Formats: sequence, C-alpha cells, structure tokens
Amino acid sequence: MKAKVYVTLKSGILDPQGKAVQHSLETIGYNAAMDVRQGKLFEVTLADGLSLDEAKKQVTEMAEKLLANPVMENFTVEVE
Amino acid sequence: MKAKVYVTLKSGILDPQGKAVQHSLETIGYNAAMDVRQGKLFEVTLADGLSLDEAKKQVTEMAEKLLANPVMENFTVEVE
Repeated sequence: MKAKVYVTLKSGILDPQGKAVQHSLETIGYNAAMDVRQGKLFEVTLADGLSLDEAKKQVTEMAEKLLANPVMENFTVEVE
Repeated sequence: MKAKVYVTLKSGILDPQGKAVQHSLETIGYNAAMDVRQGKLFEVTLADGLSLDEAKKQVTEMAEKLLANPVMENFTVEVE
C-alpha cells in the first residue's frame, strides 16, 4: 500500500523559497505566475497487511510527529 | 486560478533524504513505513483571465523549464 503526504506552509508564514521561484519564473518570461508557494511531498510505501483505516491512521501520526511541523505547516494524507 | 505541480524523483534515482526520513520513522517506532521518497510540491497562483487549457500549458512549460529537472524528476500538473 502507498500513502502520500502533502505538506504545505500555513498561510501567513513567509515562503522566501517560493518567492525566489516566482521571481525566476518572471525572469524567464512567465508573468502569469503571480505567487508560488513551495511544499513537500512524501511517498510512503507501507508494509502489507495494514487495513486502509489503519494505514491512514498511522501515516497521519507519522505526519504529525515527523513529516510536518504542525506549528508552521499543514498536511494532507492520501492512502491508495 | 491555482495550479499544483508535484515533482518526484524518477524511480532508480537514489533518494538519501527519503531514506533518512524512513530511518527516523523506524527510530520512533513506525516500522510499517518500508520506504519513503521525498518530492516537491509547488502551488502556483495564476493571473486571472487564463483559460484552463492555457493555464495547464503554461504551468507545464514552467515545470519543464524551471520547477523540475527532467533528467532526474517526473512531474504532474493539476489546475483547478
């Protein structure tokens, strides 16, 4: 089973890395990109034998404890 | 309009960062995570007035030219 965790900065948290990307896009001619925010993506391969519910629960815990910083970041978990 | 670009390492490309995360998960007791691969996520806010097709085309170009390294990375684009 595979899970994906998407980690994004909370709104209100400055994102200089995203800003730099947006500026670079502008420099090479893409003026339509008004704002860019950069996040992280984790693809987690899970051991066999977990139920979908159990997998979602465990991966959510992993995100809370390690993959995301809950003070500054939001995350969403997808299990497939 | 907003677009999301998901950038992941191609299979076969080593991911020491993901490996370190997987090891840390193991250390705090999550043995169900067999493998972790880390990718990037860009949220791009686009200027008003672009059609959906035009937006998808432009963001795909941005990904090819700047957001992803096509030699080592795959990407998918979602426009909403």
